Amino acid sequence: MPVNFNLAPARPVAGVELVTLNAGLKPEGTTDMVLARLCDSSVTAAVFTQNTFCAAPVTLCKEYLSANGGAVRALLINSGNANAGTGQAGYDMAKGHCQALAQAISVSENAVLPFSTGVIGQLLPDDIMRAGINSAVEQLNQAEQASEIQAWQDAARGIMTTDTLPKLTSQSVQIAGQTVTITGMAKGAGMIEPDMATMLSYIFTDAALSAADLDAALRQAVATSFNAITVDSDTSTNDACVLVATGQSNDGDTVSLSAGHPGWSVFTEALSTLCLDLAQAIIRDAEGATKFITVKVTGGKDIDECRQVAYAVANSPLVKTAMFAGDANVGRLLMAIGKAGVKTMDASKVTVSLGDVVAFEQAGIAASYTEEKGAAVMAKEEIDVTIDLARGDANASVYTSDLSHEYVSINADYRS
Amino acid sequence: MPVNFNLAPARPVAGVELVTLNAGLKPEGTTDMVLARLCDSSVTAAVFTQNTFCAAPVTLCKEYLSANGGAVRALLINSGNANAGTGQAGYDMAKGHCQALAQAISVSENAVLPFSTGVIGQLLPDDIMRAGINSAVEQLNQAEQASEIQAWQDAARGIMTTDTLPKLTSQSVQIAGQTVTITGMAKGAGMIEPDMATMLSYIFTDAALSAADLDAALRQAVATSFNAITVDSDTSTNDACVLVATGQSNDGDTVSLSAGHPGWSVFTEALSTLCLDLAQAIIRDAEGATKFITVKVTGGKDIDECRQVAYAVANSPLVKTAMFAGDANVGRLLMAIGKAGVKTMDASKVTVSLGDVVAFEQAGIAASYTEEKGAAVMAKEEIDVTIDLARGDANASVYTSDLSHEYVSINADYRS
Repeated sequence: MPVNFNLAPARPVAGVELVTLNAGLKPEGTTDMVLARLCDSSVTAAVFTQNTFCAAPVTLCKEYLSANGGAVRALLINSGNANAGTGQAGYDMAKGHCQALAQAISVSENAVLPFSTGVIGQLLPDDIMRAGINSAVEQLNQAEQASEIQAWQDAARGIMTTDTLPKLTSQSVQIAGQTVTITGMAKGAGMIEPDMATMLSYIFTDAALSAADLDAALRQAVATSFNAITVDSDTSTNDACVLVATGQSNDGDTVSLSAGHPGWSVFTEALSTLCLDLAQAIIRDAEGATKFITVKVTGGKDIDECRQVAYAVANSPLVKTAMFAGDANVGRLLMAIGKAGVKTMDASKVTVSLGDVVAFEQAGIAASYTEEKGAAVMAKEEIDVTIDLARGDANASVYTSDLSHEYVSINADYRS
Repeated sequence: MPVNFNLAPARPVAGVELVTLNAGLKPEGTTDMVLARLCDSSVTAAVFTQNTFCAAPVTLCKEYLSANGGAVRALLINSGNANAGTGQAGYDMAKGHCQALAQAISVSENAVLPFSTGVIGQLLPDDIMRAGINSAVEQLNQAEQASEIQAWQDAARGIMTTDTLPKLTSQSVQIAGQTVTITGMAKGAGMIEPDMATMLSYIFTDAALSAADLDAALRQAVATSFNAITVDSDTSTNDACVLVATGQSNDGDTVSLSAGHPGWSVFTEALSTLCLDLAQAIIRDAEGATKFITVKVTGGKDIDECRQVAYAVANSPLVKTAMFAGDANVGRLLMAIGKAGVKTMDASKVTVSLGDVVAFEQAGIAASYTEEKGAAVMAKEEIDVTIDLARGDANASVYTSDLSHEYVSINADYRS
């Protein structure tokens, strides 16, 4: 599929300096290390993978955040190696790198959050990482452009692994007569069924927020965006989504926000939009994807059962190969809905639509349905599947890609 | 992979007559209808799919079995069309076919069990089915070979859809000085993660058993065989596993068995072996399979959590593509174990072995592990992955295939 993210253009956020380089983890000509320096007024919140084998940097991030209460001053991100499944040695090494960076930029150790993405189960090359950190700090101290849009674009590229294009976007809203900017980047194309977060997303705003409000805003936005996508049902060991409020504005006075502020919902809606745009960009760039599929389940008793059905459909290899083939295979959709485990569902009340075309209702193929109508929907690159359970008022959407030869090729070749 | 089922040779079971023909649901030159007539002393038990959208014939089978108490006199099986997602019309049609057959062979309607496999969501062609039933009965009345081994081989082929080879095997055991024979056939290659049964398996024994004992023996055998395999995590709408005890022997006196009989465990072990052989044959013939993978989880608190971890690994697209590539990707195994949802698992105590090679222990790659040792295991066609959770005494095995280009091709082309 021609990857078209339809993302709004990105704008820098005041209070954030970014440098991106090749430290030597990935081949020359690519970039594999990003250093973000955050101004002293900034506050940071984050959510992480629920995978039991979470990576060493994830463990460290959680420890540091609980110690620093959100007072983070630098993010150190590498691609090419996930530092996961590496035990105490991997933990010690990540800690050593945070200490080295903290010393070089004169902040406390726990003010540095480490993030790694790439191959699982291999130790980071210590020398390469330390040399890279030194280069990054040197570059940061020299760089006048570290706050320019080019630095943001470079960083969005520096965190990529199997992504084909960087994912970077902004939302700007007017609150109390001031412009609040939220800019975020994300990476991810496979091993995507986030469970509380996705594979590396960094979001920055120039508003000022408390750590608690920031955390609440982030969790709310993530629930319907990064936690509503799946490529292959596989949950990464390194998922993280980070939200930084710098409290430093390029556009006039800084806006101080809190949950009771009249502009709160404007801010959280903009944040949710930005998260959904980035999450959908991950699916549009999914490994081998040729289709962008929205599975919307309506009429559920609660959101959980809607998500359960939507994920059963979105993760079914037989549904995904039919999508790849452009085959309006209603039977496979029924199979997937039926296996979702909502045992009290009344199959005779379920309605399934492809786009606007009702395909299945009252326990049989809809009288008005024809293969031609189904085929016309399936020929499109963007396919909406709507499943009405007709047993309640809840609904939920999940976004996914198809299962193509290219997915198999990418994952048979790539050691992730 | 060269499909090698290693199945023991099949022997006919007395009291069963089989005819197989092309009714016209599938192309000429193939077969698509099997009729099994069962002797008057026979007793039948069956387990069926848990899919909410279970097919019309599954619904009918359950109704008939509860009415006839196991006194089944005929099985009517068609391939090429699953009669699933077809609502009241599909139900009425299946009932009509049972009535027609029952009348033709002079048994009561509920003594005929109908089974369908193939495309979901299309009505059966009524004329073709009725003409087929007439031909089948005619053939049955003329055929002197309906009890010969060739009739069994034809039937095993007649129930196939995307299978490449028929799956038919026997176990013979000595009980009370007599030979008891159990012969079973199965079909299935995709849409395989059975939930209480698998996609069509028919097992026959010449022993005499009560309906209750037969049911108990079947459920016990299915738990560790058909309910321990997965190709793609997708659960069919039409799964059924049927066990018939004819109580009629080719080899001397009939053996009457019950749960208290001294030969009971000999019988149930032979039945379990036969079910496991057929279930493994399904995986060896799985759509696009190039590897046969056994995921064994040991040291669990209970069997449920062992199965949960084993299925998370066996169904992970990233593990399956690595298996296809012959890549000893320990990281992806950790990822899959970690996402299984056993939240109280201590990741630092988990040991992962490829074949006899310990790959991961004490929270890191094993000191003795080398890529060469891992690669040697992965180069084989049969791969054992053993995961020790070190938190209890339970264990469970799940059998699966890899995810290859051929799987995508088959399922992008085939309307199932």
